[in-house]
Amino acid sequence: MSGSTFGKIFQVTTWGESHGKALGVVVQGCPPGIELNEAILQKALDKRKPGHGSTSTKRKEPDTPQILSGVFEGRTTGTPITIMILNQDAKSHDYSNIARIFRPGHGDITYLAKYGIRDYRGGGRASGRETAARVAAGAVAEAFLRQYQICVETVTLEIGGVRAARIDREFASTNYLECPDAEALLLIEQRIDAVKKEGDSLGGVLEITARNVPAGLGEPVFDKLDADLAKALMSIGAVKAVEIGAGCKTSQMTGFENNDQIIPSKPEFDKICDIVGVSITSNSDDIITGFETNNSGGILAGISNGDDIVARVHIKPIPSILKEQMTVDINGNPCPVSTQGRHDICAIPRINPVCRAMVWLVIADHLLRQKATASL
Amino acid sequence: MSGSTFGKIFQVTTWGESHGKALGVVVQGCPPGIELNEAILQKALDKRKPGHGSTSTKRKEPDTPQILSGVFEGRTTGTPITIMILNQDAKSHDYSNIARIFRPGHGDITYLAKYGIRDYRGGGRASGRETAARVAAGAVAEAFLRQYQICVETVTLEIGGVRAARIDREFASTNYLECPDAEALLLIEQRIDAVKKEGDSLGGVLEITARNVPAGLGEPVFDKLDADLAKALMSIGAVKAVEIGAGCKTSQMTGFENNDQIIPSKPEFDKICDIVGVSITSNSDDIITGFETNNSGGILAGISNGDDIVARVHIKPIPSILKEQMTVDINGNPCPVSTQGRHDICAIPRINPVCRAMVWLVIADHLLRQKATASL
Amino acid sequence: MSGSTFGKIFQVTTWGESHGKALGVVVQGCPPGIELNEAILQKALDKRKPGHGSTSTKRKEPDTPQILSGVFEGRTTGTPITIMILNQDAKSHDYSNIARIFRPGHGDITYLAKYGIRDYRGGGRASGRETAARVAAGAVAEAFLRQYQICVETVTLEIGGVRAARIDREFASTNYLECPDAEALLLIEQRIDAVKKEGDSLGGVLEITARNVPAGLGEPVFDKLDADLAKALMSIGAVKAVEIGAGCKTSQMTGFENNDQIIPSKPEFDKICDIVGVSITSNSDDIITGFETNNSGGILAGISNGDDIVARVHIKPIPSILKEQMTVDINGNPCPVSTQGRHDICAIPRINPVCRAMVWLVIADHLLRQKATASL
Amino acid sequence: MSGSTFGKIFQVTTWGESHGKALGVVVQGCPPGIELNEAILQKALDKRKPGHGSTSTKRKEPDTPQILSGVFEGRTTGTPITIMILNQDAKSHDYSNIARIFRPGHGDITYLAKYGIRDYRGGGRASGRETAARVAAGAVAEAFLRQYQICVETVTLEIGGVRAARIDREFASTNYLECPDAEALLLIEQRIDAVKKEGDSLGGVLEITARNVPAGLGEPVFDKLDADLAKALMSIGAVKAVEIGAGCKTSQMTGFENNDQIIPSKPEFDKICDIVGVSITSNSDDIITGFETNNSGGILAGISNGDDIVARVHIKPIPSILKEQMTVDINGNPCPVSTQGRHDICAIPRINPVCRAMVWLVIADHLLRQKATASL
Repeated sequence: MSGSTFGKIFQVTTWGESHGKALGVVVQGCPPGIELNEAILQKALDKRKPGHGSTSTKRKEPDTPQILSGVFEGRTTGTPITIMILNQDAKSHDYSNIARIFRPGHGDITYLAKYGIRDYRGGGRASGRETAARVAAGAVAEAFLRQYQICVETVTLEIGGVRAARIDREFASTNYLECPDAEALLLIEQRIDAVKKEGDSLGGVLEITARNVPAGLGEPVFDKLDADLAKALMSIGAVKAVEIGAGCKTSQMTGFENNDQIIPSKPEFDKICDIVGVSITSNSDDIITGFETNNSGGILAGISNGDDIVARVHIKPIPSILKEQMTVDINGNPCPVSTQGRHDICAIPRINPVCRAMVWLVIADHLLRQKATASL
Repeated sequence: MSGSTFGKIFQVTTWGESHGKALGVVVQGCPPGIELNEAILQKALDKRKPGHGSTSTKRKEPDTPQILSGVFEGRTTGTPITIMILNQDAKSHDYSNIARIFRPGHGDITYLAKYGIRDYRGGGRASGRETAARVAAGAVAEAFLRQYQICVETVTLEIGGVRAARIDREFASTNYLECPDAEALLLIEQRIDAVKKEGDSLGGVLEITARNVPAGLGEPVFDKLDADLAKALMSIGAVKAVEIGAGCKTSQMTGFENNDQIIPSKPEFDKICDIVGVSITSNSDDIITGFETNNSGGILAGISNGDDIVARVHIKPIPSILKEQMTVDINGNPCPVSTQGRHDICAIPRINPVCRAMVWLVIADHLLRQKATASL
Repeated sequence: MSGSTFGKIFQVTTWGESHGKALGVVVQGCPPGIELNEAILQKALDKRKPGHGSTSTKRKEPDTPQILSGVFEGRTTGTPITIMILNQDAKSHDYSNIARIFRPGHGDITYLAKYGIRDYRGGGRASGRETAARVAAGAVAEAFLRQYQICVETVTLEIGGVRAARIDREFASTNYLECPDAEALLLIEQRIDAVKKEGDSLGGVLEITARNVPAGLGEPVFDKLDADLAKALMSIGAVKAVEIGAGCKTSQMTGFENNDQIIPSKPEFDKICDIVGVSITSNSDDIITGFETNNSGGILAGISNGDDIVARVHIKPIPSILKEQMTVDINGNPCPVSTQGRHDICAIPRINPVCRAMVWLVIADHLLRQKATASL
Repeated sequence: MSGSTFGKIFQVTTWGESHGKALGVVVQGCPPGIELNEAILQKALDKRKPGHGSTSTKRKEPDTPQILSGVFEGRTTGTPITIMILNQDAKSHDYSNIARIFRPGHGDITYLAKYGIRDYRGGGRASGRETAARVAAGAVAEAFLRQYQICVETVTLEIGGVRAARIDREFASTNYLECPDAEALLLIEQRIDAVKKEGDSLGGVLEITARNVPAGLGEPVFDKLDADLAKALMSIGAVKAVEIGAGCKTSQMTGFENNDQIIPSKPEFDKICDIVGVSITSNSDDIITGFETNNSGGILAGISNGDDIVARVHIKPIPSILKEQMTVDINGNPCPVSTQGRHDICAIPRINPVCRAMVWLVIADHLLRQKATASL
């Protein structure tokens, strides 16, 4: 109810403030017997850690996860898994100057409106640091889903208006910005350097792809798989738009252009055969996909169709900038503000593992939901 | 859990299939003492009814709502409000020909994969008819929120790739497509006629604006106001992308361009004064807004800031088309399909009241959530 | 949140008032493919119907259930099942005299305190008529659980202080009071007649037994199987105490007396073998039960152990009596009250199917919860 | 869903095993601005600590609570409050001998049946140590409810079959067993000594009273205040029966005996006046209560009536005893067992603060639920 819990069966509750003693997550509903240890979590957290490149904050946090409960002799027991990360490099004095003003683009003013009190240190609960807990939780979901061969990938399509012209996933895996186009990467790096000098910041666009998601996940009406993905991704602070499949483009297509024509396919139909329990003999063995295109992003009527799940998120520029802005203080008097703290220039690439984590969580939850009531 | 319930306190559960006996909704958590009757619901339902113009199905449904519970002597009692709409013009035989094939762009194949059984008549539970129940529920939320002077509006920005160049809300209120630009309207109508002749269909873009929403609504982390709006809107069958505020555009802005500078403002600050319980004297009386721009769409860190809430949805073209498409039957054999049923050409304008209803529901729920734990 | 929903996965929402147009229930989370029709529901409802004997109201309600959604060609589809029962013999004028007073033992005063408004006709939402919806929902759960050979039985242990000295379940099944002792039955019937003449009413004690419930149902800590049974049964208006297994008596036993000694047992251990996936060879084949006694009521640490689930409920006398009582009117003035409506003398036997229904619902929900996360 | 979360708005999630690194609780939905610090929590936890008298385990746990989040400058911020208690005296080797057997009366066998894996050290998640987290959470609820003058008390009515003949609450507050009768106390202590020598254990009966609970709390139908109290109390491991008000006795009363006659009363009616917003003039000022008796336990139709909330719980004897018992090992072979660990002889008095904590949690949650939708 108070907004820090996500999921119905595979359910995570994050807690903690940017400059409190610790932050963490309680994971409930993870099936028993899953291999889990701190090294698995650390590997995921390392990808979110600052300090990888030119876009990143100078705050040094090792983000060392401690598993406090729910794991016995290296395996999950079915009881709540609590993961804690101590805050180590929390320089509260950095933020004393913003205790009495509202930073543009931040939640300072809305948290005060909501609660009448706010932990102003580093954004408190609204800080991007909270996403470390999501990444840890996502790693638990990933550990559980490994047995299904599901994988979740991201690729950076655009930063600061510079768009990748080609998608070379192998190249993307070799550069810290996850950019799939070597030429675009050069331009993006130039753009980042220029904006950094101006004391300004940048946004971008990410694409997330989930492969091998079984058909049948997602619930009719409100808890459609795409609806839950939209919520999961929009709940990440910097995200301002979410597209599924062809997304915004579908509004300009005709029905014939947008509909993914259905063609016989061994793998997809075998999956459906298994579920339905009917024996289907298709005429051809050499056909690769059950749908000619994937404008739907792998989701029909809110339920996965066995094809790749595809979503895109549009990320706003980091609101904390050195460049002077106009604001008011808590007495309502106008005053200038320039944020001197340790901030990223762009949420990409640190937001990429957070997006992946949210998609892992959605899939884990919907897979268990389907398991609960499937007729098998 | 099974996906037909939305909201935590102001909570609605829709039920019913396209060609079953009836469909409806149970509204829980509506405060007692609110004026409610069938005429109020009918007024809202009439805006979703087919038959308004060239885009619409020929199915004739009066959509007469019956209040079965929760209202006594014209006022809500605080107990569950059940609203039922009987299905009258349900021609099941229209659909017998599609009982054994999967229509492209529809949930036929995914419902079967999920459940191993499906009510194939008119899309069953996946039918757009389900949204009548949402509109009725939204009308209950609207009746409750009237006391707060909140209003929710929609405007059609685009159909079939033709975009409105100007936003004349008064003009929009005079045409059934809610198009705010007379010139664009002409082009849109031509486009609709042309596509109809080809047996094809169209999508479009809508903007939803909620005014007078108090600051402080929305919960941190997962249940951000924008996250819940994204889920609410993406849960509407035809929606494939959701933007908040400047949305997709924010990814190309710098932080300085995107941040809404904060300026002293009587109304916004008076609201915050009231909530915080501090007396604030601002220097000037003649300033109109607390934020110079509204790229945030009225939401900062997931919590409303007192400005207009703005969202845009991208709507895919209706998947049911006369034009012949490729598909397979339930034996996996390829076959052509041409949908002969009674279908809309474009989800706009019938989807507009559905989008408004979902926004009403989100606001009603978050207002009650804030009321529950606010420190006042 | 507003209290009319029960269960997490197999989830029911009842709605409707005693003298409204209709009452009913929405059942969500019922697996697809289960055989269901109105005759199955009617059979269950008939057992709750008034008019079976000397304890019962004279109100005539056929309680004819209509399935409005979620069933197609005689089988559940996995979508919400809505069941409606029209109120036919609702004589509102019977209750006009109590519109302005608070009946002792009733919710009149508390509903007004809570809501500031109340539907005073026949108890409104607080009426025992609401339990018809529970019985219908319980019949859906029973239909689903039939495949597991689970059965739920009740037996009347006591009415008006007269206790059954022996448990003859066959005899119990032949008399409308479900009394398992022929001698006690005679005394009970005499007691009922005497109390009826005085314009007073009686309570009693019921025992509920669920057989063939698999081991492993129930969740640690708060959602223990016994905790959810206690809530389920205490949520029935007339129930004032709930015992599990040896219940109240355990407080007077020593640990050695109360602990159920564990003995090798083919059936119980085979079940555990299956779940654990280990091959266990027990030394003897002729042992009947895995536990020497069943003081635990089939639940250890909140989780079913494969033995019979046993609960007892203590039922208060019907509060509506002809005998004159003291009360106040809505102006706070003292006044006498004598309830002339059509009321039962004792909630037994009409409450018996309601208790069974609540136990069906708890088991169905916990079975699906276990199915969702079991490691198999 | 996985059972470790309680409450809808004031919502607590406990986590941790008996012999893991730590245990704790996340409290969500606590209103902002409430004074809270570790000293407040420690005071509550000290009452549950072992070592107070002859009934108690020898395990030494300081139970030092650490607030990790949700509190800023000594006040709650409205965000999740995480409280952690490190396990210090966790002697895992004590339990190695029970790793391969099932202790009678314990969850060893059911946890294995449920999960196929179990943390056998000290009962793991099923250990009574989990209740430390409940007590800490209850202290947060108490801190919030202080402003309403609500208080929650317990008194020990019976241990080992010896019943208090008189209720002297002042005397009860001076002895560690909370026994309200000096004579009974002597007999109880003799009984405890005798049973201890036999290597056996005892149960008992507690009464919980909540005063100054406003009228109007509790929701109709399933989430009745008494239903939620029954669940809350039955979720405590040792509790086997729950009574509300006159409880078991009501089944032997007539309606006239059981109904609490309503009489004009200043305080109760003023409360209702306030809520309803009507001006009621009662005829007399010198009447103390609105109800002549309190057989209802302060709850009518599931909603509080302004009178004291009264519940009783029946507590089974501690299952861990020195006396030799029969059981089987994980291979299904019979074997004797004698539990040598550090265990209490009787759950009373350490269970008393746990019962109070659960009642605090129920009231806090229902008060916020009422606040959310009350018409005021």
